[in-house]
Amino acid sequence: MNVKAYAAHAADQPLGPFVIERREPGPKDVVIAIAFCGVCHSDLHTVRGEWGGTLFPCVPGHEIVGTVSAVGSAVTRFAAGDTVGVGCIVDSCRTCAACGDGLEQFCASGMTGTYNSPSPDAPGHTLGGYAQTIVVDEAYVLSIRHKPEQLAAVAPLLCAGITTWSPLRHWQAGPGKRVGVVGIGGLGHMGIKLARALGAEVTGFTTNPAKRQAILDLGAHHVVVSTDKAAMKAARESLDLIINTVSHSHDLDPFLLTLTRDGTMVMVGGPEKPHPMPTLFHLLTRRRSIAGSLIGGIAETQEMLDFCAENGVVSDIELIRMDEIEAAYARMVKSDVRYRFVIDTKTI
Amino acid sequence: MNVKAYAAHAADQPLGPFVIERREPGPKDVVIAIAFCGVCHSDLHTVRGEWGGTLFPCVPGHEIVGTVSAVGSAVTRFAAGDTVGVGCIVDSCRTCAACGDGLEQFCASGMTGTYNSPSPDAPGHTLGGYAQTIVVDEAYVLSIRHKPEQLAAVAPLLCAGITTWSPLRHWQAGPGKRVGVVGIGGLGHMGIKLARALGAEVTGFTTNPAKRQAILDLGAHHVVVSTDKAAMKAARESLDLIINTVSHSHDLDPFLLTLTRDGTMVMVGGPEKPHPMPTLFHLLTRRRSIAGSLIGGIAETQEMLDFCAENGVVSDIELIRMDEIEAAYARMVKSDVRYRFVIDTKTI
Repeated sequence: MNVKAYAAHAADQPLGPFVIERREPGPKDVVIAIAFCGVCHSDLHTVRGEWGGTLFPCVPGHEIVGTVSAVGSAVTRFAAGDTVGVGCIVDSCRTCAACGDGLEQFCASGMTGTYNSPSPDAPGHTLGGYAQTIVVDEAYVLSIRHKPEQLAAVAPLLCAGITTWSPLRHWQAGPGKRVGVVGIGGLGHMGIKLARALGAEVTGFTTNPAKRQAILDLGAHHVVVSTDKAAMKAARESLDLIINTVSHSHDLDPFLLTLTRDGTMVMVGGPEKPHPMPTLFHLLTRRRSIAGSLIGGIAETQEMLDFCAENGVVSDIELIRMDEIEAAYARMVKSDVRYRFVIDTKTI
Repeated sequence: MNVKAYAAHAADQPLGPFVIERREPGPKDVVIAIAFCGVCHSDLHTVRGEWGGTLFPCVPGHEIVGTVSAVGSAVTRFAAGDTVGVGCIVDSCRTCAACGDGLEQFCASGMTGTYNSPSPDAPGHTLGGYAQTIVVDEAYVLSIRHKPEQLAAVAPLLCAGITTWSPLRHWQAGPGKRVGVVGIGGLGHMGIKLARALGAEVTGFTTNPAKRQAILDLGAHHVVVSTDKAAMKAARESLDLIINTVSHSHDLDPFLLTLTRDGTMVMVGGPEKPHPMPTLFHLLTRRRSIAGSLIGGIAETQEMLDFCAENGVVSDIELIRMDEIEAAYARMVKSDVRYRFVIDTKTI
């Protein structure tokens, strides 16, 4: 079936209207009329070829929400009219230990990303959510139980939400735990909201003193301006867990020092230029760890969506028209967004 | 009391005979006639001023074993004639959370190291085990239950042993766990022996193919020559835990790739020049961690000594005379020792 989308045809060209082909739905497939799609920094990295390996034409978008318009004959969990979401993963081997553990992002054969992954479907690689329709195996489709009017603001939960939720849960953020979030952008603002909703004591780190009140409004108990050396010193050994969402190269040492004994800093951003090597001594002297985390599996994404529906958690968004995407990218590069752009896909 | 010792008077001078003063034993003190003292790489770093902050005269040595010669009036746990040990720690605040948890190495006020730490005793800083006698509060004295003829080979357990034991226990090495040890020197050879004795499946990593049989003899199930790219590739995702004992700057990436999902590489060495920053992607894509660990607390040192006595674990050593120390340092720098020099302190 032919579907209206927005695509880039080369790394140095802007996105523009493009008709793509979606596969005819198989027995296990769900056809989704996309209502909204969040704009992730990965979308920009990919369309601009900044990570290498971009397959063109490229249709980005992996924060997808919409309504089921049709289902295959063997689909059991969804029916036409259901409100659903699709995140970063649309397939995986389903047989390896990671898939068995519901952690498809770590699939031994490599997960199939929602865009830019090899695919038997035309044009030979997956095409994402900057489009009006997508066809996805039901095993990778999420149920959304939020109120209908919240739907646009739910979209970013599918990547920004799960990317912070997964490490918060894995490293047991909750009552009695002190959690820091470094970088209050698309990911970080969700980290603050989710850590707070999970019952942790939350500290937001920002380089921008003007964001202080906004970060408190997101739910942080404390805000530390990370360029303020005295404030950073006062925050030493005050945290059990840090979610570091900053995707540009920066000095990790001041943040490591805010961790208490056995504390962990979890990196969820992938900088183009490596961070400077942190001081190993800061790890040794308090048995601290630096870890990495990558989005999250399907089961924990559903868990997160259900938790957010129950607790009224959504993303703070700016809704844009599809033809505003290049301007949105330009603003995103300058961190000029509070906190996530979401495309109204009926404007495609 | 005056005690024969070996001291350095400046960073560029060799160690030589020197008479030091030990405090008169207080009510809680144990006077120990030192029989043997292991030679740790930290000793060399300190006497040469390579870490900065060396206080001269410097008497190194924190792998001390010997016999109790006298005890203070309030000492309850030791009596004259007992075989005892002293490791890296001779005091701490005893009131902070770390001390309360038996992890004095992380004392909030800073532990008092066995040498080169500020002290009310002459000459104003602690003096270590390259000496015939030491006076230590009983709370920091360890019981040794090995056979008498094993005593010299027990000495390195007090630093090399506990430095590898502590992370092996903290990260739960045991049956069903696959443990790698990087660098098979003083620390690494104890890592192999202890991980094996704890029931783990053990892989030794070395740059030296000639060490293969020796590493198997220590108890490793597998040996991987880390400069052999094909062998390193074959070892990918095969380990749950790595103890990295290498104290010079090296590429961490090939070792990170041998960790499975949720695996941790624990760094226990402190290089003078930082390691290159590892590839963050290797952390993200398998939720791996890099952690640090520092020696171990008094309670876990006793646990390790008792475990080693019960399981017949000692260090592999070369016994030296005190006046051979500079030659031993020269060989140590070239990794020409299997695996630890131990000083016979009656030769002082």
